[in-house]
Amino acid sequence: MSSYFADIPPIRYQGPDATDALAFRHYDKDRIVLGRRMEEHLRFAVCYWHSFCWTGLDPFGGGTFERPWFQGGSPMELAQMKAQAAFDFFSRLGVPYYCFHDRDVAPEGATPRESHEMLARMVDVLGEHQQRTGVKLLWGTANLFSHRRFMAGAATNPDPEIFALAALQVRDAMDATMRLGGENYVLWGGREGYETLLNTNVAQELDQMGRFLSMVVDYKHRKGFKGTILLEPKPREPSKHQYDFDTATVYGFLTRYGLEREVKVNIEANHATLSGHSFEHEIAMAAALGILGSIDMNRGDAQLGWDTDQFPNNVPEIALALYHIVQAGGLGSGGLNFDAKVRRQSIDAEDLFHGHIGGMDVCAKGLLVAEQMIQDGRLAQALQQRYAGWQNPDSQAILDGRRSLEDLADQALTRNVDVAPRSGRQEFLENLVNRFSGT
Amino acid sequence: MSSYFADIPPIRYQGPDATDALAFRHYDKDRIVLGRRMEEHLRFAVCYWHSFCWTGLDPFGGGTFERPWFQGGSPMELAQMKAQAAFDFFSRLGVPYYCFHDRDVAPEGATPRESHEMLARMVDVLGEHQQRTGVKLLWGTANLFSHRRFMAGAATNPDPEIFALAALQVRDAMDATMRLGGENYVLWGGREGYETLLNTNVAQELDQMGRFLSMVVDYKHRKGFKGTILLEPKPREPSKHQYDFDTATVYGFLTRYGLEREVKVNIEANHATLSGHSFEHEIAMAAALGILGSIDMNRGDAQLGWDTDQFPNNVPEIALALYHIVQAGGLGSGGLNFDAKVRRQSIDAEDLFHGHIGGMDVCAKGLLVAEQMIQDGRLAQALQQRYAGWQNPDSQAILDGRRSLEDLADQALTRNVDVAPRSGRQEFLENLVNRFSGT
Amino acid sequence: MSSYFADIPPIRYQGPDATDALAFRHYDKDRIVLGRRMEEHLRFAVCYWHSFCWTGLDPFGGGTFERPWFQGGSPMELAQMKAQAAFDFFSRLGVPYYCFHDRDVAPEGATPRESHEMLARMVDVLGEHQQRTGVKLLWGTANLFSHRRFMAGAATNPDPEIFALAALQVRDAMDATMRLGGENYVLWGGREGYETLLNTNVAQELDQMGRFLSMVVDYKHRKGFKGTILLEPKPREPSKHQYDFDTATVYGFLTRYGLEREVKVNIEANHATLSGHSFEHEIAMAAALGILGSIDMNRGDAQLGWDTDQFPNNVPEIALALYHIVQAGGLGSGGLNFDAKVRRQSIDAEDLFHGHIGGMDVCAKGLLVAEQMIQDGRLAQALQQRYAGWQNPDSQAILDGRRSLEDLADQALTRNVDVAPRSGRQEFLENLVNRFSGT
Amino acid sequence: MSSYFADIPPIRYQGPDATDALAFRHYDKDRIVLGRRMEEHLRFAVCYWHSFCWTGLDPFGGGTFERPWFQGGSPMELAQMKAQAAFDFFSRLGVPYYCFHDRDVAPEGATPRESHEMLARMVDVLGEHQQRTGVKLLWGTANLFSHRRFMAGAATNPDPEIFALAALQVRDAMDATMRLGGENYVLWGGREGYETLLNTNVAQELDQMGRFLSMVVDYKHRKGFKGTILLEPKPREPSKHQYDFDTATVYGFLTRYGLEREVKVNIEANHATLSGHSFEHEIAMAAALGILGSIDMNRGDAQLGWDTDQFPNNVPEIALALYHIVQAGGLGSGGLNFDAKVRRQSIDAEDLFHGHIGGMDVCAKGLLVAEQMIQDGRLAQALQQRYAGWQNPDSQAILDGRRSLEDLADQALTRNVDVAPRSGRQEFLENLVNRFSGT
Repeated sequence: MSSYFADIPPIRYQGPDATDALAFRHYDKDRIVLGRRMEEHLRFAVCYWHSFCWTGLDPFGGGTFERPWFQGGSPMELAQMKAQAAFDFFSRLGVPYYCFHDRDVAPEGATPRESHEMLARMVDVLGEHQQRTGVKLLWGTANLFSHRRFMAGAATNPDPEIFALAALQVRDAMDATMRLGGENYVLWGGREGYETLLNTNVAQELDQMGRFLSMVVDYKHRKGFKGTILLEPKPREPSKHQYDFDTATVYGFLTRYGLEREVKVNIEANHATLSGHSFEHEIAMAAALGILGSIDMNRGDAQLGWDTDQFPNNVPEIALALYHIVQAGGLGSGGLNFDAKVRRQSIDAEDLFHGHIGGMDVCAKGLLVAEQMIQDGRLAQALQQRYAGWQNPDSQAILDGRRSLEDLADQALTRNVDVAPRSGRQEFLENLVNRFSGT
Repeated sequence: MSSYFADIPPIRYQGPDATDALAFRHYDKDRIVLGRRMEEHLRFAVCYWHSFCWTGLDPFGGGTFERPWFQGGSPMELAQMKAQAAFDFFSRLGVPYYCFHDRDVAPEGATPRESHEMLARMVDVLGEHQQRTGVKLLWGTANLFSHRRFMAGAATNPDPEIFALAALQVRDAMDATMRLGGENYVLWGGREGYETLLNTNVAQELDQMGRFLSMVVDYKHRKGFKGTILLEPKPREPSKHQYDFDTATVYGFLTRYGLEREVKVNIEANHATLSGHSFEHEIAMAAALGILGSIDMNRGDAQLGWDTDQFPNNVPEIALALYHIVQAGGLGSGGLNFDAKVRRQSIDAEDLFHGHIGGMDVCAKGLLVAEQMIQDGRLAQALQQRYAGWQNPDSQAILDGRRSLEDLADQALTRNVDVAPRSGRQEFLENLVNRFSGT
Repeated sequence: MSSYFADIPPIRYQGPDATDALAFRHYDKDRIVLGRRMEEHLRFAVCYWHSFCWTGLDPFGGGTFERPWFQGGSPMELAQMKAQAAFDFFSRLGVPYYCFHDRDVAPEGATPRESHEMLARMVDVLGEHQQRTGVKLLWGTANLFSHRRFMAGAATNPDPEIFALAALQVRDAMDATMRLGGENYVLWGGREGYETLLNTNVAQELDQMGRFLSMVVDYKHRKGFKGTILLEPKPREPSKHQYDFDTATVYGFLTRYGLEREVKVNIEANHATLSGHSFEHEIAMAAALGILGSIDMNRGDAQLGWDTDQFPNNVPEIALALYHIVQAGGLGSGGLNFDAKVRRQSIDAEDLFHGHIGGMDVCAKGLLVAEQMIQDGRLAQALQQRYAGWQNPDSQAILDGRRSLEDLADQALTRNVDVAPRSGRQEFLENLVNRFSGT
Repeated sequence: MSSYFADIPPIRYQGPDATDALAFRHYDKDRIVLGRRMEEHLRFAVCYWHSFCWTGLDPFGGGTFERPWFQGGSPMELAQMKAQAAFDFFSRLGVPYYCFHDRDVAPEGATPRESHEMLARMVDVLGEHQQRTGVKLLWGTANLFSHRRFMAGAATNPDPEIFALAALQVRDAMDATMRLGGENYVLWGGREGYETLLNTNVAQELDQMGRFLSMVVDYKHRKGFKGTILLEPKPREPSKHQYDFDTATVYGFLTRYGLEREVKVNIEANHATLSGHSFEHEIAMAAALGILGSIDMNRGDAQLGWDTDQFPNNVPEIALALYHIVQAGGLGSGGLNFDAKVRRQSIDAEDLFHGHIGGMDVCAKGLLVAEQMIQDGRLAQALQQRYAGWQNPDSQAILDGRRSLEDLADQALTRNVDVAPRSGRQEFLENLVNRFSGT
């Protein structure tokens, strides 16, 4: 086929005042920010599923996108056309990374072996595209939630035979990730949860899930994979409840199965808000617990109770998220994967570019804002001053476990004075932050 | 004073067809249910704060209740009148237990020492009332959230001096609990969280909170207290975020500080729903994680985003919750504390009785429904059958860690057959459950 | 084909203690309740779409149901098999009514004319099934939301050509409804709303929608259709915002276009809760505004932010809803349509029966509870007494507009006394209601 | 007293790069924007209640603010100190307007007459302060929700005597507003709703509320008041349900009682989000319905289910809201009232300034962004083009009512072609908008 994106020129940085809608106004990949290239900070990835597999279908309507690779050939032919289009898109857009599920890139076969083989063949194809274009794999994952066999879970399925089929898929997806030089491996458990407690043994299912993850970690080590294993929290949808509810829940799960030093979290903005948290909360919590791994960058809709996976478009919000990431030392092998899709009505090829360009520019501008916040230093300084009392030796003795409850109680009773609280200065700090957003 | 409740007769069990609104229709405390007296299963407690301290004030209006102990005397005189009224209420209602915060029963003094001494004097008064009436203390707790000194937290306060004042209050409240024969000690961290991440060091605050709880546990052991230490999860309100978000989060927190065998959770129905979970989810999760401690029985309003603390009134829902509790082996030293208040418009003394009578009857009926569910056995049997495949030796080998990912993957590949899923039978099970509710 | 439901016997009433899961325990259609047969009160309908068209697909997974009519024939052959199965189901279940969208019963053709003709042919088929089985049509409707042409709305589409295509579909669906003796005609505007205000002219779209509805009403009158035109409110999903947000919003829309005496609402329980209201709120509000028409009976999940369309299973809740309906004089030509689907994991033919049997029994039991509430009379009496002050002539003068603000103000100032409020007695009333649920 | 704000200099515009936290960086009141002075566009008002009456009390804790006017004098002395401080604040901040409830500025007396007289005296005091400072009254209102007599509503109270007391308060508050040159009069019905339908007659209460509002409108006309009567929608809190749920609901209510040309809405950002809408939705809907009146400017917290009344701080969001306002022709006699409060931990006098300065700067910057969006014109042009098809005569005939359903249906059938939808271009438009936010 002639390229689906033939009308779209490669997207270039043209500066803040660019009038061309198909250009970056902030994403200048080689610009040095806090000592590193912008591209190295942001490590953008395009996801395969939303932009190349989704048809526009929603629970109340069928597909709206009419992509050439959706029909008119055998499954493998269509998979190859899709790969061709995807890498063409990645290249024109100029992102360094992409991400995929096994079933995004290769069809489900009639048997496990056929699926296994078709994936292997498509991995070759992807490898060639990677070589040709220089685009790299941020992470791979296995789709353990779309096929009906997984309707009651994969690792947590009541049927051990389905657990074994999930093991096959994950082994193959990890192998594919390794062959393609992927830098991380992700597990998202959309069906690892329940629809009703009436048919669910929670303790049994948690143990199954713990075991499965331990097997994944063991396999990684046996194979010498240096990437990070990532769990992606999501509180619900498609299941009523998912065990990987949020970062704090995942942390508890990891400690229960002794995996808190082996596995990190891949935090999605929209999953954060669905779980009742802000995006920056999930980042700050993961950083505090030592399990911050990677980011699925997108946004939800504050009025909608489901995953809308929209492109981020609010600079002040993204700037705060990036500030927390940079303060935490960055994402290591992780990156910013756009787990985002154009709206169902955005049916033109060009719309795919607008979504990604906008998202990349918002993140780039957000990074520049975060840079200013860090260089200015007042925000960090205010925080340090607020907790300064905990730095003195007496206070350190408390934290070190050298003081007892009665000890402290007696001291307070003897001193017998109340303590005046100090202002939390929230409005001052909010104004300070706004200063850096150009607002 | 003559009794505020003089017009209310002692509340008696009169059977399901009783027409008297001031009688129990289901709560027959000596009825044997699954081998124990109903009273022993349910272990009801009235809470001091909602029924005897709350004035009817809400964020948009002042008090509506005109109780004799709200004004017209010195703080200590009013505290004594309140205690008199409270125990009069407990006795007429016929509950075995009550619960309190330190500041519910004794006034805040002008200095730490004065508060300490006034609490001690009120503990004597409470002890006399307990002895006189036979009403016992289910648990005590310290109010570390109402006074302005705690506006930025108690254990998590940026100021270590406030941490020490919190230690004094908790030590005194634990001492009071022990002196009064309390069977548990509860910590609820309404201000242990944040309003904005801009002024918050999450890692520092978690460490402070971990240390504080460790000191509480150490003190318990030094004093030989046999009761259970309980944390009460709540996701937010009054803070934007509270660290004890839900049961799974508390579990992770406890494991982080090595306390998962020392501390359990006190689950509140309305806190469960605020955190995005059903009440029975929180119970089932706590049971699965081994930290189910006690219950704050109430209900929220599905349309309202805050803690309404209403009395439970839906038997099918409560029956499911009690089914999970009984299946988990009961609550041990815990009980069902009515953390519930009459509505702001329910200003008559009698309304306090209607609230509690309705709540107790709903729980009693719910227990009878749960008894039938258990005796019938089909629900448990369906669950067992669903996971039966995991009982065979090959499956056990997976759970025991004797199988590897590649092992299972190769087996599935060799077998090369897909597995048909089986119906989850949710509607059948829901109908089965309804059968026992008399519906 | 041999019947898909061959193994299922006709469902019969067997009484509350029946142990057969495939029997009614409360739905005794000829039982007289408040002067009418139970069947006449409840007017149950099965919906075509959830039980016969939905494949189990959700946003994260493909179909799970393997019905014989899903593949293996031409679209019209499959439509006929589906109709055969549907009426077989209706008959075995013993419901008096069903409901459908045009595209549920007949395929979308390659051209408007082909769709038009295929619908006409299927209407003949349905008519024969109706005649044969005695099952009647509660209402028909047109699917103006699934096809990609309607992605930006039907009546509210920016393109008038699409408005005309919608007019064609509605005219045909109304004709079909009339030919089949349907008792109402429904419009649900799933895409009549917006995804973003950035591309939306709200005033223009409201006017288009008002015009479309006026044309529908005019057509009804020209054709002499005696049924009721119903709008079905839903706040969002699939659109970000839908103009028929809730009952009160629909009322305002109807008054804006002079249609408040021509059109009523079809209230769905799950739509009510998505809009931030209780189910009984929507019923009570529609009754107060004089636009209560019909009910889509189902339930949502209080933890999920989307339409789960589950079967109702909580008797106390349904009893309250039915109490309000009966108090409002019933539903007239409306009925209780089960806009409910079995869960995606409930893949057996039998599960379709369990869902409907449970739902019908819950409603039947709820009706019996409502009957008791009405016969007892205390609930209505308490309400009447509460507002009794408005019955005296002075108060009536206020409501009649014979008193002015300054009039009343001067009177209050002259009288110069405060007024003591009276208890709202909520807990007493809640206990009273519970008494009738057998709890 | 010496001024509470003595340490705070008058706040001046110092430009975007100002480093002084107590200066405006964007609010340059005399700058011409779209032909009018910035001050005339924004018409900022400070509200009396949050900044001068609220003590920091929340449902879980007592006051945290220690203002000199909270204690140490008679109620009237304190009211005068408060007025002194308030006008000192208004002046130093440099806002043109303020807003108040009757009970904010004058104490509740022991009798209706005493309250009436104390308000009258305080109106004199306020009048003097207005004269002295040049600060004007944007609107007045009556507090009909805080006193216990209104616990079951004011206009909707079951007791007509309480309705009369409400009439007295509103008459007096309207008189006060008129005497002080107020430009609008607001009614917010925090208790005009219900806690439970069990004790509520919705139809009766709506009629009472309709009558009350009609009396207010009549009084306005009799007195020759030229200002606008405004209803303020809020879906819930403090009541479970409030009849003025949102703009669309208020519109329906107004039409029901023939008041849609007499009364407009005062839209609050946080009330919008609580009702399940975006802030700009409520503005756009009010504009479309012709009832856009005034704005209560603040923000909620997307994770919290209650009214947090925070100061706005997100420029892209506020810019969109202001864009819709300006496109709708502005607010007329309305303005931007900061119904916002500093956080409970922001206890310093200075924090009051930071809150307002930040809010004013965010709005000023938002206005500058909106100006660019309007001057650029592409956004409006894209909208116009999208609906261009409705401008041709054939389409106008549809909207004018000259075409029937069968007419259009036949035309579509005859034409017999499907219509291809066009892209909604949401991502393109979102990027376009972001361009103007400096992002």
